[in-house]
Amino acid sequence: MIQVYFLPSLVSADQLAGRTVVVIDVLRATTTIAAALDSGAREVLPLEHVAETRQQAEKLGPHALTGGERRGMKIEGFDLGNSPTEYTRERVAGKSICFTTTNGTRAMQVCRQAQTILLGAFVNFDSLSRRLPDDGNWDVVCAGTDGQITGEDVLLAGALVADFQAKAEQGKASPPVLNDQATLAADLWLGRKLQSLKHADLTQLLKNTSGGRNLIEIGQESDIAWAAQLNHLSVTPQLDCQTWKIIAARSSSP
Amino acid sequence: MIQVYFLPSLVSADQLAGRTVVVIDVLRATTTIAAALDSGAREVLPLEHVAETRQQAEKLGPHALTGGERRGMKIEGFDLGNSPTEYTRERVAGKSICFTTTNGTRAMQVCRQAQTILLGAFVNFDSLSRRLPDDGNWDVVCAGTDGQITGEDVLLAGALVADFQAKAEQGKASPPVLNDQATLAADLWLGRKLQSLKHADLTQLLKNTSGGRNLIEIGQESDIAWAAQLNHLSVTPQLDCQTWKIIAARSSSP
Repeated sequence: MIQVYFLPSLVSADQLAGRTVVVIDVLRATTTIAAALDSGAREVLPLEHVAETRQQAEKLGPHALTGGERRGMKIEGFDLGNSPTEYTRERVAGKSICFTTTNGTRAMQVCRQAQTILLGAFVNFDSLSRRLPDDGNWDVVCAGTDGQITGEDVLLAGALVADFQAKAEQGKASPPVLNDQATLAADLWLGRKLQSLKHADLTQLLKNTSGGRNLIEIGQESDIAWAAQLNHLSVTPQLDCQTWKIIAARSSSP
Repeated sequence: MIQVYFLPSLVSADQLAGRTVVVIDVLRATTTIAAALDSGAREVLPLEHVAETRQQAEKLGPHALTGGERRGMKIEGFDLGNSPTEYTRERVAGKSICFTTTNGTRAMQVCRQAQTILLGAFVNFDSLSRRLPDDGNWDVVCAGTDGQITGEDVLLAGALVADFQAKAEQGKASPPVLNDQATLAADLWLGRKLQSLKHADLTQLLKNTSGGRNLIEIGQESDIAWAAQLNHLSVTPQLDCQTWKIIAARSSSP
């Protein structure tokens, strides 16, 4: 069964126990973490509070950097904010990023009993979807913003479900059973005829979401176009439940 | 602003204070309450617990009936279940219905500080939508089922928003500002091209929701087709926040 949850509060940790789960925070945590790993960051440690993020970086020493945001803005004294464009090879290659964002971290927390936790964004859509179990047993947790459902996360969830359904129709995967949120998200994506998606269309679509409007408001509009670069990266970030570190998933099958 | 909430848990009572709010529980509470009032029931009292529903009916005396459901089934010793087809003129005309359903009642509770509470269903779509403020300041609370978002409620929310947007495009209403849930719901409805809706299509669509599947499972499939009769009734149920009674809204403007 494919179960989509539009917010972390709509699912409990034990419902996700043992499952393969995709965490989505398109604008911007999961997009930025994908960028960091693609630029050669060794690992990303998702942390809830600012203080523990600083402490963790101090503990790790000189190869560690602090990154993340509060209300979309870079945190005072941190090395990096939450814009994917900051996470260049020059800045982050070989580094451990101690990273704190409010919504993305909360979404990861609810997955703590899952078997496999993957991080999804439009920039790594294909590499992510290739890692989803063919038997149609996986879930999606959308981060949302401050407890509200956000369009950008639901759209990506819908794209993943619709893509899987198309695979099943071609006989390449088992026809999935969906919960209503999965059906709604897929119908939404297909209704937009976004199979034949152009970068400009997706950018425009993301601008009209609450996440998009927030970024425009804080002067970080260019990150929307960045996040809309479908399949720009080939990395799939995976959160290890034991070590609580995000690393690039190995290139073999999941 | 039009704000849609896919579940009562996604909004707090004070966020709805002073607003006009539509409560939706298509399968079946709001459909059935519309049927009861259309059949001449004097009022419907929405109650949370079975015991208080019985007590209230006893207190009101011979002109009162008990109605409602648990897990979709009629409650033992109650006069009526939760099927709209039971609420005929012969049974309910002139009666006070003490009515308990789990999800619908919870959705009404969160509206307790609202200025106007209207109950929505496909069967009373037009009469309801005519009562929504032209200035685009109204909200929708979907009941869902046991804390899960259900497709049938989201679809109707989307139909209401899309209908209002069409009115605004014709200059008959103010162009509304939408929260993301309102945008998603409207896009979903429009993506289905359901403006040109036929009864068979809507019935099929409702069958493929979790509410629809539940009804099929308990042998009450015929209620789905009943609930899909777009504009079959001209009544708009309105919940009075002072008396906590649902009556037919007067025929004048809201």
